Amino acid sequence: MKVREIAEKAKKVSFSLVDIPTDVKNRTLLRAARIIEEKRDVIREENRKDLSAGEEKGLSKAMLDRLLLNDKRINGLIQVLHDVASLNDPVGEIVKMWKRPNGLRIGKMRVPLGVVGIIYESRPNVTVEAASLCIKSSNAVILKGGSEAINSNRVLVNILKEAAALEGFPEEAIQFIDTTDRSAVKEMLQLDEFIDVVIPRGGEGLIRFVAENARMPVIKHYKGVCHVFVDEFADLEKAWNICFNAKVQRPGVCNAMETMLVHSKIADAFLPTMIEMFKKAKVELRGCERTIKYDPDYVKPATEEDWHAEYLDLILAVKVVDSLDEAIDHINTYGSHHSDAIVTENYTNGMKFINRVDSAAVYINASTRFTDGNVFGLGAEMGISTDKVHVRGPMGLEDLTITKYVIFGDGQIRE
Amino acid sequence: MKVREIAEKAKKVSFSLVDIPTDVKNRTLLRAARIIEEKRDVIREENRKDLSAGEEKGLSKAMLDRLLLNDKRINGLIQVLHDVASLNDPVGEIVKMWKRPNGLRIGKMRVPLGVVGIIYESRPNVTVEAASLCIKSSNAVILKGGSEAINSNRVLVNILKEAAALEGFPEEAIQFIDTTDRSAVKEMLQLDEFIDVVIPRGGEGLIRFVAENARMPVIKHYKGVCHVFVDEFADLEKAWNICFNAKVQRPGVCNAMETMLVHSKIADAFLPTMIEMFKKAKVELRGCERTIKYDPDYVKPATEEDWHAEYLDLILAVKVVDSLDEAIDHINTYGSHHSDAIVTENYTNGMKFINRVDSAAVYINASTRFTDGNVFGLGAEMGISTDKVHVRGPMGLEDLTITKYVIFGDGQIRE
Repeated sequence: MKVREIAEKAKKVSFSLVDIPTDVKNRTLLRAARIIEEKRDVIREENRKDLSAGEEKGLSKAMLDRLLLNDKRINGLIQVLHDVASLNDPVGEIVKMWKRPNGLRIGKMRVPLGVVGIIYESRPNVTVEAASLCIKSSNAVILKGGSEAINSNRVLVNILKEAAALEGFPEEAIQFIDTTDRSAVKEMLQLDEFIDVVIPRGGEGLIRFVAENARMPVIKHYKGVCHVFVDEFADLEKAWNICFNAKVQRPGVCNAMETMLVHSKIADAFLPTMIEMFKKAKVELRGCERTIKYDPDYVKPATEEDWHAEYLDLILAVKVVDSLDEAIDHINTYGSHHSDAIVTENYTNGMKFINRVDSAAVYINASTRFTDGNVFGLGAEMGISTDKVHVRGPMGLEDLTITKYVIFGDGQIRE
Repeated sequence: MKVREIAEKAKKVSFSLVDIPTDVKNRTLLRAARIIEEKRDVIREENRKDLSAGEEKGLSKAMLDRLLLNDKRINGLIQVLHDVASLNDPVGEIVKMWKRPNGLRIGKMRVPLGVVGIIYESRPNVTVEAASLCIKSSNAVILKGGSEAINSNRVLVNILKEAAALEGFPEEAIQFIDTTDRSAVKEMLQLDEFIDVVIPRGGEGLIRFVAENARMPVIKHYKGVCHVFVDEFADLEKAWNICFNAKVQRPGVCNAMETMLVHSKIADAFLPTMIEMFKKAKVELRGCERTIKYDPDYVKPATEEDWHAEYLDLILAVKVVDSLDEAIDHINTYGSHHSDAIVTENYTNGMKFINRVDSAAVYINASTRFTDGNVFGLGAEMGISTDKVHVRGPMGLEDLTITKYVIFGDGQIRE
């Protein structure tokens, strides 16, 4: 089927989804969970096809790992479906309502976005996460996964469609672009007539391509160049723990720290121990001149590029700064507006940091690693938006809706 | 100055605006109101230059009227500044805050969008409306008005800058692209590094151009193909009044009715009187076959194009339909998702219409003409968004903000 026909179908069915009872949506999700449980073997078989093809193509170990659906990850898919089923249905919620002097009652009601296109790479679990959130929020979804995961994605989509058919949720609301042809993405991005919003999840190249070619709104899930600033009034124990955790606990993810900023007045007390901790954990350090002085043999010189870098690895850029303002400027200039933290016991500095740092998630005295829909209590997430309209940070179920105005009158006309 | 330099300046200053006290913002707005009062003559003189140039260029009467700043309209500008000063400051509001099991307190705080670019045509009052809303919401603004209003826009921007300088609001936050060169727009749309969102206001051509060329998010203020559906259970008096008001009270605006849908079961009782009313008001009617039968001499046949048309004039398309579902389908297919109304005394039909019609504003028993930020009680508006992300319908002060996550910890690290 052509991409245009797929999108047209999705748009057509989308208007009816707003009226699907919550119960039907939940039963669809739980049914899909049961079918996944029953078809573990089929899923693993299809996944093995992708893995062998990936090996032949010479995909990296990391890529192959992202592609893998083992029993633990299949359990994860089942868990996501249960989690999303247990969340409140956002559709139809009236978030505000007021009365005007002429008697009109004006409310803002949550409605689905309509048709959501998702363009993603490798990890096949995104198929289930994205589709389940769209089902629960009454959005039609068009899934375009990476070519390397085509067999895994196809079997998962078929299970979701089977569950939909069995429970009376419109099957056509779950659309899958079943091709490894990259031109399908470009075609999809032209169809603003049918697709209301596109969410790219993947590498920088993919996201840039989507942003530059899409005619419809795009919600970008971009890179994370996250900072921790150790203020002159930091509690040293907290600072060591938070910085170590933010860098080392899981370095390959977008909310891990990539640059550590240290106030010059606390550098003598803080840096020697911190450098020792990172050394033991085999974290490569790239520092400014003042940082290097604390361990000239271990700390390499940082270049301008390092302040922009998302290493996603055991590498850290370190800079000594002379003021809170300098730290804030550095973060707003070099950061990716994702997640940034200050460690301080000073109330005024903490509040200034919270107010002035222009990022999706700003922390006082906690690790940046907490930026995650589940950890924040949203239940599940479509990803982490680094855009500045519609939603910033973890994108949950509510963020797949928008409010429309509903107006209840009694014959009012405008004078 | 180059567009790029202007945008860079706006971006740089934008980070500091979040901390500007509400009081300084309000005093800037009220000071601008006073200067406008003092400089009425200068404003009218500059406006006359635009009007003469427009006459020479052969602009239409309607265009020249939109361009005109007479005393009444200058009073309107002063009123807008007072109104915006009196609105609540949305910046810094924490709209939600909750505590996680690990003790983290997670909140969503309203922050400015950053740098807002506005690309608009003819009406110079947009300069003051847009700038005042951006000042109050702590956004930097880049104003690109139409070439036909360049002198009027320049003098108004200079007054706003003068007020900012006198009251301590950063002048660089109000940027004006002082050129009639259209290539400046294209240049502006490439600068996603510095401009966070672009709002086009004007004709369909302008909006399409912006949507297709912008690299940053766009909030479109598109056309209004608005409907009133007269249900079989309509109160006839209400239906006649609402339909007449929606078409005739001010036909040249986006929330005026362009197509009237009538249930076949009420057509005999409703249409003859309605057609007489429209006849008296000199409204040209273009109807379906069944409509024509009620007055074959007056009602012209409608073509497929008429169902798509935004006349902005005393012309109305009329269609008889056989069911509520047919009406809803027609609106969702041919409408522009702006403002649509049902006239009915039937509760279930009214609620179904509210739920199923996919428009920014959906009415029961009221004229579509109410879709307006002021009338809705938002105080002032940037325009009426017909997009489906970030904001639908009248775009007020709150919609010039976005929430970011603020997280208050006590040393928490992720396990």
